Amino acid sequence: MNKQFEKKELKKKSENLSDWYTDVVLKAAIADYAPVKGCMVIRPYGYALWEAVQDALNRMMRSAGIENAYFPLFIPHSLLEKEKQHVAGFSPELAIVTIGGGEKLKDPLVVRPTSETIMYDMYSKWVHSWRDLPVLINQWNNVVRWEKRTYLFLRTTEFLWQEGHTAHETEEEAMEMVMKALNWYRQIYEDYFAVPVVMGKKSESEKFAGAKTTFTVEALMPDGKALQGGTSHNLGQNFSKSFDISFQTRDGKSEFVWQTSFGFSTRSLGGLFLTHGDDSGLVLPPKIASIQVVIIPIFRGDDGQEALLEYCGEVRDALVGQGIRARLDNRDSQSVGRKFNEWEVKGVPVRLEVGRKEMEDRAVTMARRDTGEKVLVERKEMLPKIEKLLEDIQTSLYETALKHMNDNTRDVSTFAEFEDIMKTTRGFIRAFWCEEASCEARIKEATKAATRCLPLGAAEENGVCVHCGKPATHRWLFGQSY
Amino acid sequence: MNKQFEKKELKKKSENLSDWYTDVVLKAAIADYAPVKGCMVIRPYGYALWEAVQDALNRMMRSAGIENAYFPLFIPHSLLEKEKQHVAGFSPELAIVTIGGGEKLKDPLVVRPTSETIMYDMYSKWVHSWRDLPVLINQWNNVVRWEKRTYLFLRTTEFLWQEGHTAHETEEEAMEMVMKALNWYRQIYEDYFAVPVVMGKKSESEKFAGAKTTFTVEALMPDGKALQGGTSHNLGQNFSKSFDISFQTRDGKSEFVWQTSFGFSTRSLGGLFLTHGDDSGLVLPPKIASIQVVIIPIFRGDDGQEALLEYCGEVRDALVGQGIRARLDNRDSQSVGRKFNEWEVKGVPVRLEVGRKEMEDRAVTMARRDTGEKVLVERKEMLPKIEKLLEDIQTSLYETALKHMNDNTRDVSTFAEFEDIMKTTRGFIRAFWCEEASCEARIKEATKAATRCLPLGAAEENGVCVHCGKPATHRWLFGQSY
Repeated sequence: MNKQFEKKELKKKSENLSDWYTDVVLKAAIADYAPVKGCMVIRPYGYALWEAVQDALNRMMRSAGIENAYFPLFIPHSLLEKEKQHVAGFSPELAIVTIGGGEKLKDPLVVRPTSETIMYDMYSKWVHSWRDLPVLINQWNNVVRWEKRTYLFLRTTEFLWQEGHTAHETEEEAMEMVMKALNWYRQIYEDYFAVPVVMGKKSESEKFAGAKTTFTVEALMPDGKALQGGTSHNLGQNFSKSFDISFQTRDGKSEFVWQTSFGFSTRSLGGLFLTHGDDSGLVLPPKIASIQVVIIPIFRGDDGQEALLEYCGEVRDALVGQGIRARLDNRDSQSVGRKFNEWEVKGVPVRLEVGRKEMEDRAVTMARRDTGEKVLVERKEMLPKIEKLLEDIQTSLYETALKHMNDNTRDVSTFAEFEDIMKTTRGFIRAFWCEEASCEARIKEATKAATRCLPLGAAEENGVCVHCGKPATHRWLFGQSY
Repeated sequence: MNKQFEKKELKKKSENLSDWYTDVVLKAAIADYAPVKGCMVIRPYGYALWEAVQDALNRMMRSAGIENAYFPLFIPHSLLEKEKQHVAGFSPELAIVTIGGGEKLKDPLVVRPTSETIMYDMYSKWVHSWRDLPVLINQWNNVVRWEKRTYLFLRTTEFLWQEGHTAHETEEEAMEMVMKALNWYRQIYEDYFAVPVVMGKKSESEKFAGAKTTFTVEALMPDGKALQGGTSHNLGQNFSKSFDISFQTRDGKSEFVWQTSFGFSTRSLGGLFLTHGDDSGLVLPPKIASIQVVIIPIFRGDDGQEALLEYCGEVRDALVGQGIRARLDNRDSQSVGRKFNEWEVKGVPVRLEVGRKEMEDRAVTMARRDTGEKVLVERKEMLPKIEKLLEDIQTSLYETALKHMNDNTRDVSTFAEFEDIMKTTRGFIRAFWCEEASCEARIKEATKAATRCLPLGAAEENGVCVHCGKPATHRWLFGQSY
């Protein structure tokens, strides 16, 4: 399944990020274009990354008492209409089923773009008393938001995600959940993907359709564009009032529940691929890589093949026994050069080269994907050295990405400078903004950059809006976006 | 979230299986009706069972080198049409998207009823040489086959499943995979669900649309109706010829790949619920139950609550430490009677009752859900006794179901007897059949019973068809179906 290697060489990240990205995602067999406009196929090597995200997020969610469930794919249009901002936000991008079982449907069905409405219709049936709260439900599913052009992972009509939906007795408790989820997303990016993010609050015009407040994690890509990495919403009582999710309080009154929703999608993997990697292909951070170490036996002629493979197998078993995700590439249908090339493109963090010399010396040659560095390591020191190396790679990838983000986050006080940056290097800009939507729209029109968020913990200051000069109290983060 | 307990009592399994089934699935909070015709919501307590199935099947599939991936929800109608039997089989039950992003689509999209066509379009792109084989891919997803009436789990428009799709160099290798998958399905039913099944081959008229041969696991429900539990198909070269999935063989020729597909769905959970359980609710086999042991503290007044809860917590920790899925129900919002009732309906295999007496004696009272039997067990003997009890329950549930299946599987040689059985007790009938589709259709018209399968290993014999009297070589399994 590595046909594409034969056809042509990989495009260069150093020359054109976007061309490289598409090329490497295809050639590493992460994903492929589907025969349906706007859609893609996630191939096993890419899907394994998503399964790793699922494992990690499931652990985090379970620790907060959240359980998984499944709600229908189809939503009657009438349900969607119950929350006015929500339907207005999603209407332009809906896919609609009008024929079912050979008949024209009287009541067309929307393919879910998100599940607030169908879930909350059920919540109103399930919740009556404070004893029924909190409701802590998550689902892993597919959602559809119409797109005409596919940008692998980053923009597809269908994508996979988790959507958590909780209901609480108090807004305080709901806000705790909102921040918990936001922190889980930060952890996935920073600890697993080695991608630093800024956590913050979205502006009114950028918030989720139907939310009271939306929080986000924002990452900065190598081309200076921002990627919205995941969002967590305080829904207040907007939906509970529309869907009549009310409960008897502990003191016998009736109140509407306080709700949250939060989502993390396969889009995030696009950010992972864009951030790391080089002209030779992907570089996957060890913590998320499905193969952390690949072992490649190097034969000279037919002599001693069996002994070499046995030694390689022993090395593999030792690694696996230590909990390291190792694979022995013993295919005889591929040359060593082709194998090196393939695993480089696929971004496996560590390659072990094992030839007759290594076998005779009871050693392995350890090659590091991110720097290319090679060292000979004695077999008996191999396990701790590889564990240390995997940690070093994880840290080093994060630090490189953090340096890039810090170097490209600029405090700006004049609009001329703002415009100039967005025409050249791009990146994040921190600037005072008056918080008026019309002013935000004009900034975007002039520079293609919108507010990304108000970073958490941003100090209250006395300033003037970078665009209109009106009084402003906070520096917002601006950026062009994917 | 246990509102329904207050409203009315559970319907009786002993009086009406179908009414009991729906009632218990709703009251145990396994699932609920959705506000969309033909669809349902799988609630956390039900979804946990599906997650357990996923874990078990993922382990089995991984052992055979199968990897998970994801293909699009939407299929262009033109792709579906490429395999003629396939499109004919699925056309009547399709849901079709005709509007996307506010515009009428020129090329309407089918919501996948199964993914052969969209996957094989990709396989033809990926496979060129024997080096690219085998392709061993599975996906966990949602599929849609139009239904007007919902029968929870057993008949829903949308359902969840896994669909495995493999491609091989030889038919022999493909057939090995077909049988491997069938055996995995048998294991899930027999070892996890404690539901015995018959493995066999489907008749020509009952096989999968597009398959060369379909194999099935068939279970017998308490009302004597059969449930098709999972199917595994030898697709031969039917699809590879339609989709042009050809490869260069080891000796340089060009050949079409040999394919399989196999699927196991949430429908299976319906069979699990129907098989076990009684007038007090579900009975879940320990191996699949998400909660195997529930601990209920029994307070008399407020005295000594804290010490009792501490002791219960210690018991819970000991169980969890042993790998037993235990939960302490320490809610003070529910009475002990309500808790007993709730966990009985939910079918938790073992209940531990812990009152002051048990605490003072360093003991627990162990109640077994399937028989109702209660014994006092010393704390220090608790772990091995509970482990043994869980095994006993698993075995006993299986044996009871096996006895029911054996008692209701009858060798029949006259059509009068056949008709009589299908009018009264139903069950499985083993009878000679001429293997002509028209005769099979007439049997079904007269008795509502169709062939379920030709059991694996059925001997070749000289017989006459139970219906038409023509020569027949094998006894087929017949039954009415869900």
